[in-house]
Amino acid sequence: MQRIEGFGLARVIDSDDDNYKTGDIIGGIIGWEEYSLLRSSDNLQLRKIQLDDDIPLSYHLGLLGMAGFTAYAGFYEICCPKKGDSVFVSAASGAVGQLVGQLAKLHGCYVVGSAGSKQKVDLLKNELGFDEAFNYKEEADLDAALKRYFPEGINIYFDNVGGSMLDAALLNMKVRGRIALCGMVSLQSLSTSSQGINNLYNAIPKRVRLEGFLQSDYLHIFPQFLENVARYYKEGKIVYIEDMSEGLELAPAALVGLFSGKNIGKQVVRVAKE
Amino acid sequence: MQRIEGFGLARVIDSDDDNYKTGDIIGGIIGWEEYSLLRSSDNLQLRKIQLDDDIPLSYHLGLLGMAGFTAYAGFYEICCPKKGDSVFVSAASGAVGQLVGQLAKLHGCYVVGSAGSKQKVDLLKNELGFDEAFNYKEEADLDAALKRYFPEGINIYFDNVGGSMLDAALLNMKVRGRIALCGMVSLQSLSTSSQGINNLYNAIPKRVRLEGFLQSDYLHIFPQFLENVARYYKEGKIVYIEDMSEGLELAPAALVGLFSGKNIGKQVVRVAKE
Repeated sequence: MQRIEGFGLARVIDSDDDNYKTGDIIGGIIGWEEYSLLRSSDNLQLRKIQLDDDIPLSYHLGLLGMAGFTAYAGFYEICCPKKGDSVFVSAASGAVGQLVGQLAKLHGCYVVGSAGSKQKVDLLKNELGFDEAFNYKEEADLDAALKRYFPEGINIYFDNVGGSMLDAALLNMKVRGRIALCGMVSLQSLSTSSQGINNLYNAIPKRVRLEGFLQSDYLHIFPQFLENVARYYKEGKIVYIEDMSEGLELAPAALVGLFSGKNIGKQVVRVAKE
Repeated sequence: MQRIEGFGLARVIDSDDDNYKTGDIIGGIIGWEEYSLLRSSDNLQLRKIQLDDDIPLSYHLGLLGMAGFTAYAGFYEICCPKKGDSVFVSAASGAVGQLVGQLAKLHGCYVVGSAGSKQKVDLLKNELGFDEAFNYKEEADLDAALKRYFPEGINIYFDNVGGSMLDAALLNMKVRGRIALCGMVSLQSLSTSSQGINNLYNAIPKRVRLEGFLQSDYLHIFPQFLENVARYYKEGKIVYIEDMSEGLELAPAALVGLFSGKNIGKQVVRVAKE
């Protein structure tokens, strides 16, 4: 049977590695299982979690984990944000998108997010501080929707979905706009009749840069990320929304739910209580 | 009637601009016409041509003109070349591509070009110094063709065509590969059944950067370009191939011929002899 893995948190029961002692909480790539055998040499992202009474433990999976770090590295290292930039985020209430939007607001940007339900759009505007948000499922013409929110164009598109939203964004980029390609596999893999991207040629007259990235290339700034984002959270400057499923047996349903947008915020599966 | 313009050379007949005297040869955006009225204030790329007995005048349209500068700026400023990089150039015998490939060779890269006829492929290998070249019209599977020439992947793709060649290149990029988006309008505008780009998602795991550019953003390095490329030419390190049509009345046919690849090398239309 194939062993399924994901980024998780666990308590150390026993260890012969001096960096991890019994009782420590660690984060890293672990199996979908109740007990795991981990080797730090195989697990580049394995690290000891510094517990903090002011931060929920599960936030080390999302806000202070791989998802949050993807947002942080992608926004600062790929998007080259400037104060006043117009920023568009797709899948904006998701694990990554919600932090991208909030970091962009803290940076002095105008921020619009797209999501797939009225409830998510309300969250973006009322809880997460986005300037505007829209439900892409209610927009017959994504190009027209973007022109409504960005009449002067988009400086930064943080792309979590690919497909037709990326195609529409390409029609609305400002000169020297930046597109961070963060996630499009999910939509791609669901779509049986992908039409492909037709508007990439717009990147030439507009001198647009598109760049794919993985957070694992930026681990040298992980300590800076942890320090800054934990401080923003404690200062009340950012919030984080997660969707908790209870019990390992719900993990498959939680995974499948991601593809239909069933979750609201970072999807977490709790296998054992603290 | 719409006035059609293009980058051209002309001799000054009369001038009230101190920078241009009667008898000077100038280069810039001029009309498809025998006599033109130009205003330097409207014509950002207008400049006096420094004549050189060792360089054919028409080369100031191609090798030392906008096409050559597009190759130079795109290769050095967008592609970030390193010695030993694997470089792929499409439309490789064209006005831009032939210089990209030769600059890449001078930079110590492995260079493969694609073109649309056996004659062009022979030129690439025998005259222009490409390591390998292939006729894309004879390849049923462009992905397989690229895998044949780049078994370990592509560091730099200088894209002059877009479409299915770009899609195939996206499947063959190395980690942190760079794609300079230089021209895809031609193919796009001809194709009535464009399938779009389907492999852009590969840019995420491979961390590929795609960037559209225009040479006009890099005019600050134009003097450096002129000096270096003219020197390479005089030293015999590069050659340049052009396709000369005689007479303004052939200009429309020459333009249309570009879209079917009729020309070999930089297409030039001679309106008047020196």
